Amino acid sequence: MSSIAHELAKKQKEISVSEFFEKNKQILGFDSLTRALITSVKEAVDNSLDACEDAGVLPDLTVRVEKMENNEYRVTVDDNGPGIVKKQVANVFARLLYGSRFHTRAQRRGQQGIGVSAVVMYSQLTTGKAAKVRSKISDEDVAYEVELILDTKKNKPDIINEDYIIWDRLHGTSFQVHVKGKYVTGKQSVFEYLKGVAIVNPHSKITFIPPEGNAVVFERASEQVPPPTKEVKPHPEGVELGELLSMAKYTESLKMTSFLNTEFSRISYRVAREICDITGVPPDQRPGKLTLEQAGAVLEAIKKVRIMSPETDCLSPIGETLIRKGLKNVLGSLKAEFYAPPVTREPKVFAGNPFIVEVGIVYGGELNREDPVQILRFANRVPLMYQQGACAITQAIEAVDWRRYGLEQRGGQGIPFGPAIILVHVASTKIPFTSESKEAVANVPEIREEIELALKACARSLKTHLNKAAKRGKAKVKFEIVQDIIPMIAEKSAKIVGKPVPDIAGTITKIMNVVWIDDDVKSEKKKQLVTVRIFNYTPKSQSFHLHMLVPYDKIDPKSLKEKPIEMRDGDKVTWEIRRLQSTDVFELGFELAGVTAEQYTENEVYVSGIDPASVIGVEVLPGDWDLEHLRITEEGPEGIEEGEEGEVDYDEGAEVMNNEE
Amino acid sequence: MSSIAHELAKKQKEISVSEFFEKNKQILGFDSLTRALITSVKEAVDNSLDACEDAGVLPDLTVRVEKMENNEYRVTVDDNGPGIVKKQVANVFARLLYGSRFHTRAQRRGQQGIGVSAVVMYSQLTTGKAAKVRSKISDEDVAYEVELILDTKKNKPDIINEDYIIWDRLHGTSFQVHVKGKYVTGKQSVFEYLKGVAIVNPHSKITFIPPEGNAVVFERASEQVPPPTKEVKPHPEGVELGELLSMAKYTESLKMTSFLNTEFSRISYRVAREICDITGVPPDQRPGKLTLEQAGAVLEAIKKVRIMSPETDCLSPIGETLIRKGLKNVLGSLKAEFYAPPVTREPKVFAGNPFIVEVGIVYGGELNREDPVQILRFANRVPLMYQQGACAITQAIEAVDWRRYGLEQRGGQGIPFGPAIILVHVASTKIPFTSESKEAVANVPEIREEIELALKACARSLKTHLNKAAKRGKAKVKFEIVQDIIPMIAEKSAKIVGKPVPDIAGTITKIMNVVWIDDDVKSEKKKQLVTVRIFNYTPKSQSFHLHMLVPYDKIDPKSLKEKPIEMRDGDKVTWEIRRLQSTDVFELGFELAGVTAEQYTENEVYVSGIDPASVIGVEVLPGDWDLEHLRITEEGPEGIEEGEEGEVDYDEGAEVMNNEE
Repeated sequence: MSSIAHELAKKQKEISVSEFFEKNKQILGFDSLTRALITSVKEAVDNSLDACEDAGVLPDLTVRVEKMENNEYRVTVDDNGPGIVKKQVANVFARLLYGSRFHTRAQRRGQQGIGVSAVVMYSQLTTGKAAKVRSKISDEDVAYEVELILDTKKNKPDIINEDYIIWDRLHGTSFQVHVKGKYVTGKQSVFEYLKGVAIVNPHSKITFIPPEGNAVVFERASEQVPPPTKEVKPHPEGVELGELLSMAKYTESLKMTSFLNTEFSRISYRVAREICDITGVPPDQRPGKLTLEQAGAVLEAIKKVRIMSPETDCLSPIGETLIRKGLKNVLGSLKAEFYAPPVTREPKVFAGNPFIVEVGIVYGGELNREDPVQILRFANRVPLMYQQGACAITQAIEAVDWRRYGLEQRGGQGIPFGPAIILVHVASTKIPFTSESKEAVANVPEIREEIELALKACARSLKTHLNKAAKRGKAKVKFEIVQDIIPMIAEKSAKIVGKPVPDIAGTITKIMNVVWIDDDVKSEKKKQLVTVRIFNYTPKSQSFHLHMLVPYDKIDPKSLKEKPIEMRDGDKVTWEIRRLQSTDVFELGFELAGVTAEQYTENEVYVSGIDPASVIGVEVLPGDWDLEHLRITEEGPEGIEEGEEGEVDYDEGAEVMNNEE
Repeated sequence: MSSIAHELAKKQKEISVSEFFEKNKQILGFDSLTRALITSVKEAVDNSLDACEDAGVLPDLTVRVEKMENNEYRVTVDDNGPGIVKKQVANVFARLLYGSRFHTRAQRRGQQGIGVSAVVMYSQLTTGKAAKVRSKISDEDVAYEVELILDTKKNKPDIINEDYIIWDRLHGTSFQVHVKGKYVTGKQSVFEYLKGVAIVNPHSKITFIPPEGNAVVFERASEQVPPPTKEVKPHPEGVELGELLSMAKYTESLKMTSFLNTEFSRISYRVAREICDITGVPPDQRPGKLTLEQAGAVLEAIKKVRIMSPETDCLSPIGETLIRKGLKNVLGSLKAEFYAPPVTREPKVFAGNPFIVEVGIVYGGELNREDPVQILRFANRVPLMYQQGACAITQAIEAVDWRRYGLEQRGGQGIPFGPAIILVHVASTKIPFTSESKEAVANVPEIREEIELALKACARSLKTHLNKAAKRGKAKVKFEIVQDIIPMIAEKSAKIVGKPVPDIAGTITKIMNVVWIDDDVKSEKKKQLVTVRIFNYTPKSQSFHLHMLVPYDKIDPKSLKEKPIEMRDGDKVTWEIRRLQSTDVFELGFELAGVTAEQYTENEVYVSGIDPASVIGVEVLPGDWDLEHLRITEEGPEGIEEGEEGEVDYDEGAEVMNNEE
């Protein structure tokens, strides 16, 4: 037995990190030939985009994939970034766990210091060939070009060849490798990856030259570099005990208060003193002296004191417009029925890292009703192509009971079925990926919860839309039946009893007994034509308020025949409908100038001052504009007594208008 | 711009592997508190079991989880393994990428040299406390005990405290950490993990003391240590070009032929010379001189020459019995309808690593029909609890069209619904996990394909069972109707016409016109009572052959009234049914002695020499015993002409018997 322990001891040895990943290349995203090729392109492109953004340059990338012998491909990615200084090139491209972004807390695509060096390692493992890197920085006349391999036993670069050459660029980097791979088109392909990148990085120009030769250019859709995301200190929420102890040990601050203030974001001196008060840790204690018990107390105190939400300028969400655009792009030539207004949540924190979740849903139209919904995942503006099942985004989607929101889902769990595409973007100063291949967000409870909340918020709009559609559909059927059958009965009865056919308009209104409101948006390039029609199918005259969420300053005044009685916050507009006679129709219409179909897809119409049961086509305004995303106020137009004929005092409406803040 | 390149260069630095994982603890399986606790137990248990098996010891493990303050837990795992020599303890437990199993090609639970040190790191990060390790090897009188932390900046152990103490064990290791976690019961829990471990490691005794206190003992079900799995050289299949070049560079062999022969498994000198012949590489060339072109040629040649399948003694599949047992254990008190015979595929190779896939399915009975099927995943005898969606096992299940095999599945993809549990085990000298948390097998094409094939093979048995059940069900309904209604019609008619009720047996046979075969297995401890009943519901007498797959040597001769006319290969048994008269019943029965219900769950009965359309309850024997897993031969009993009364020459049957190999 003892000899076994000694025997085993002899085998114990250190494993170099590159040996580890060489033997576990699947962890880095090289599990199949198709994925290996995509991963190779992806790591290089992520690097290039990060470099351009660091330098505030509008990215201009060329990605070339060439077929060589057998299943070997040559991948070349050129960028117009700032270039890399000579003495760093080898380390950046041929050394694992080496990089500039690991130790900073900022929203970047690359954070691990592994990606592109892993491609070099995979390249030499599968083709035996060195990588070629060319780099030029703007204050030098020539470019530096080097052929590199990664010595996996030492995890150090080996320079095979180096030279200075003329390059007709001011600055930039070119990266070239030979990898074993498989080039495909379709859902999981280099093309789809680059398309995804182009959608959420509209400030980039990407030229893709595929093996078959015909270059595809994803043109720049915006000439603005996104505002640079700032580096931040850790937010105190979710900081671990050991991390706090380690920070206290290595800080340059001499007192606890200054330590807390300088090493964390959102801890003011006041808050720092409050924490010291609660815990009994002396404010001028040296941080290095912090004991385990004190550290525990500090973490508890952090939960109790009021600490502001994280800064948002460290994050770069993709925003409503790009979400819609992303969804539209996936739709291609298909027409959809409804875009749910995209939801961008407030920033939250996990383990000290601020993050934001965004969700968009597009529904119906020509999307396939029999398939599972399509899921588009993005993290820090990078499309995630693989590992869908491992991702917290997918798991959150599976955990929502979509039956409540109008999609099919067996047992209320799993990926729902139906004509929908769901897009989710997570932006953070640190994305917790499930592996080094960076294809799936880990199931961190704080992130998972935010994704679910964002999904539900977006899904509620979908549900409202579907309810409205369903109600209209039902009422329409009833209406058609009533309008078809009543006249026939009238005619038949009249014939039988030998009397003239009676006027049945009144009868129809008695049977229907509803106010029917129908709205519509017609799109004309940069103009949206809005109409709302109100049919009084009740036996009495009706008065009530009609409310719309609409950008008031975009309404072409000439087009607005019926003036509203109130406008608040720039978009909450109220009209008064006065004594609309039984069987009468009232039409409200206006044009929104300079507004695209993407910006205004659907009217949000509400009513108040009328029995909700007798209105079809729109919802009743909850409280006073107490809509999901709006604040609650007390004021509102007077209600009409149920069943009675409505009476609204115009002056009261005017008074409401005066109550605006 | 140049200043940016220089600015960025300043930030470039090395990242220590432990810093990397400290900041990416989710990659190691510490993404949520529940999972963190399970991971902590799992890594320690995996280590203990590997150590015991390395030493050929029957494992006896104690796992204790104690609740401390707040969400802190103390986890202690004791084993009776060989212990660890003093100077290795610190490195084994507090240094990432350090271990004995990474550089060997052998089936082990741990292979990365990360697991247990990651637990120590997580422990100090979340609770600030050191880990305590006690180890005793059998030739020393005292145990060595050490308190350790991992210096993440250097990735080196820091010894806080060490001592020698008396320990009343001959040898073993005890590991204790304090971790932030959450203890739960249910599907994903420490208990379920240990239960899974106990099922597929029946030679282990595991005592679990949960926070609530009552110890649970998973008793040893087998007193045999599984035969030790051997370390092997890489199989030449799937070896990468860069790997071959690197092996050639570092080999001690002086000639190509001896290099190929000694560094790879299954390359004999003859094959090595053949490879040299094909490629033109001189057999006595120094391996270090191998060029890129030559290496490419060698890989191509390896695909062309005949190389044997990999050795199987490096792998330890769990086997039929344990698969059934595993399934049964998950069922608990629920009764199932059918266990499909488990499938163990032949070993295959990916990237030089032999692997085996095993599949078992249990169906029906009291399992829920409305839920998705349950999936049990195992890799190298370790239950996989998390990351189901990321796993090639799940992806293979989702890719099979289960509608063909009798399960519900929308669109023929995704996890099927129905009353079934599917168990899959992958055993390999190297499991390609998707991440360091070792919870999901990567989608490596070779492995994925094998899993699909194994699933389909097992699913075919399920389908046969369901077809049989459905056919019987239908015929039974028809039969019951006929037997109910015909006598009633006869009685009524007789009454009306005032005549006696006629004998209607002949009429029933005319309407049914089938031979009805019903079989049954009754289980009596270690005895299975088999009966096959043949009802001739045709108007003519019938003669044909009846075939069963049954272990002939287990049939108790006393119980076997009706002697078969043929027996082949130990389990292919044929009886002759001679002139079974219309409306007669024939019963065949015997006992299988020393056979358990798990070993023999269902009869496989076939017929030949009769029109398939007129037999209900069994299938017609395809070809001559040309069953899925059997070889094809030419011989077979003579067929009976369709519709005619059957006539079988007994001598012919005897002749078949003589034709046995």
